[in-house]
Amino acid sequence: MTETEMKPELNRIVIAREPGGPDVLDVVARPIPSPAAGEILIRNTACGVNRPDQIERLGFYPAPPGAPEGLGLEVAGHVEALGEGVTGYKAGDPVCALVAGGGYAAYSLAPAGSVLPVPEGVPVEDAAGLPETVFTVWTNVFEIGALSRDETLLVHGGTSGIGSTAIQLAKAAGARVIATAGTPEKVAQCRQLGADIAINYRDTDFETVVTEAGGADVILDMVGGGYVQKNINCARVGARIASIAFLAGSRVEVDLMRVMLKRITLTGSTLRARPVEEKARLAQAVRQTVWPWIADGKMRPLIDSRFDLDDARSAHERLDSGEHAGKILLLC
Amino acid sequence: MTETEMKPELNRIVIAREPGGPDVLDVVARPIPSPAAGEILIRNTACGVNRPDQIERLGFYPAPPGAPEGLGLEVAGHVEALGEGVTGYKAGDPVCALVAGGGYAAYSLAPAGSVLPVPEGVPVEDAAGLPETVFTVWTNVFEIGALSRDETLLVHGGTSGIGSTAIQLAKAAGARVIATAGTPEKVAQCRQLGADIAINYRDTDFETVVTEAGGADVILDMVGGGYVQKNINCARVGARIASIAFLAGSRVEVDLMRVMLKRITLTGSTLRARPVEEKARLAQAVRQTVWPWIADGKMRPLIDSRFDLDDARSAHERLDSGEHAGKILLLC
Repeated sequence: MTETEMKPELNRIVIAREPGGPDVLDVVARPIPSPAAGEILIRNTACGVNRPDQIERLGFYPAPPGAPEGLGLEVAGHVEALGEGVTGYKAGDPVCALVAGGGYAAYSLAPAGSVLPVPEGVPVEDAAGLPETVFTVWTNVFEIGALSRDETLLVHGGTSGIGSTAIQLAKAAGARVIATAGTPEKVAQCRQLGADIAINYRDTDFETVVTEAGGADVILDMVGGGYVQKNINCARVGARIASIAFLAGSRVEVDLMRVMLKRITLTGSTLRARPVEEKARLAQAVRQTVWPWIADGKMRPLIDSRFDLDDARSAHERLDSGEHAGKILLLC
Repeated sequence: MTETEMKPELNRIVIAREPGGPDVLDVVARPIPSPAAGEILIRNTACGVNRPDQIERLGFYPAPPGAPEGLGLEVAGHVEALGEGVTGYKAGDPVCALVAGGGYAAYSLAPAGSVLPVPEGVPVEDAAGLPETVFTVWTNVFEIGALSRDETLLVHGGTSGIGSTAIQLAKAAGARVIATAGTPEKVAQCRQLGADIAINYRDTDFETVVTEAGGADVILDMVGGGYVQKNINCARVGARIASIAFLAGSRVEVDLMRVMLKRITLTGSTLRARPVEEKARLAQAVRQTVWPWIADGKMRPLIDSRFDLDDARSAHERLDSGEHAGKILLLC
């Protein structure tokens, strides 16, 4: 028996021991998984930390059935092994991927359809901050929202991973962008990212500003609560409002009369529970339209901070603080 | 001066003297209008009484700017005169039309794009019950809702003008239909119209029945209030919920988390405020798809009752009672 066989290398993954604060996160050892047919095993360089991870840690967002064990929904690294029937990639290729779980890890399994090459000009590490936000913005703002170049996007949380991505992609598409943020520094960052109008929601009423600017055609909201009615009030006729999170609560009182009279569409979506085929379709659309924008320098992942995988707790403390601007990464 | 010139024939229209009950409706004389370019003057045989007329009578649904004076949103009759540039019709042609106002009248003006021939096999009088409900169901269930033949439609108020039309059109399109109504007689009528499942909402919880039947893909709701959350609860992943009225109130408390997790689309619309070009586009779509269904006997306007134009008050008393099943018509 060789030493390798006696002491096989193990995977490290991050789990939430129980629902709670960042200190419930533990790094545990697991066997390195083998890719099943249609899967790719990725040796991760980094993984992205996302809002749904926080919700999952708190015990409110259970993993869908069959998802890999552990937290984490996006990774970047190099192809380690290909499952049966996977073509288009070879060992060592730099890739990033959306995963259904187990992204905070040295190795992750991804369905081949959710894997994309690291886009030109982006470090492999930083590419870990792309899939979750780019896929989410793409499907909500461009597919469901059908934002067109003569329209206005209102995005809340303009310096969040989602917000910074939405501002850049909407500008790349030629639309006008209004963004909200909570500090003067974040407001300035929204402008640097390309926002035509940026508002500090702590001292300025966004409903008034957006209304005076002619209203919004597409609204991307991760706040919920009292924002829902205000979004409806400053939406234009035919507007599309997409909710992707409810930081201020999802149980809201709204007057749907305005929704009807303005023919507004209220909708929302999450990525994780979508079927693998749907994610593969999204990946193709993103590769076709967004990857060239990134290669052209029209979009860059905004990285807030980097932590070691073993220090996932600090990364979640940063996430909980709400002080971050852009993505938080774990280096694997 | 001839007698005709001395005593020109006058139009009769119905106005709401002030906001209030049916007794605020008055029949008043007005000059017969002349069709402007692009308009058709119709000598009405009958006109349809609709829910928005009631709301307008109560003072809550002001006519859009430029709308003809008086209540009434749909008519059927014969072409009396054509405005400049109107082709495709000649004096005497039997037609029905969506009008922006002034439908309760001996003569009404309609934009040519909102006029359709009376469909084969339908008496001119009954055709007055078609435009408002057919256009509304078409745009909400088929355009916005994108109901497909392997899907399930849930429609509330199955024997209302809208409900009876929705049941028949969804069945004509090959979909499965679940309908709610408030009496055993109305439930039986829903089944006769083609509903696969019909529920008396007074003794049966529709949320439970629809959930057990596998959920609804498209929901057409004119109730609002507590129905909104229940609709969300029994909707399938990816469902589209269209609100077209709020009989139980539009100010509702909803949990939008379920909207996001199930990727539901909540939307709503009214016809009246839409641009003339949009109504013309709708008319073409309806003529192409729904008119042949009517000619094939797959859809018939369900007529509840007929009143003289001079007795519009009695028609509105009937509407207010909520006891009607199908359309209420005024004979002009």
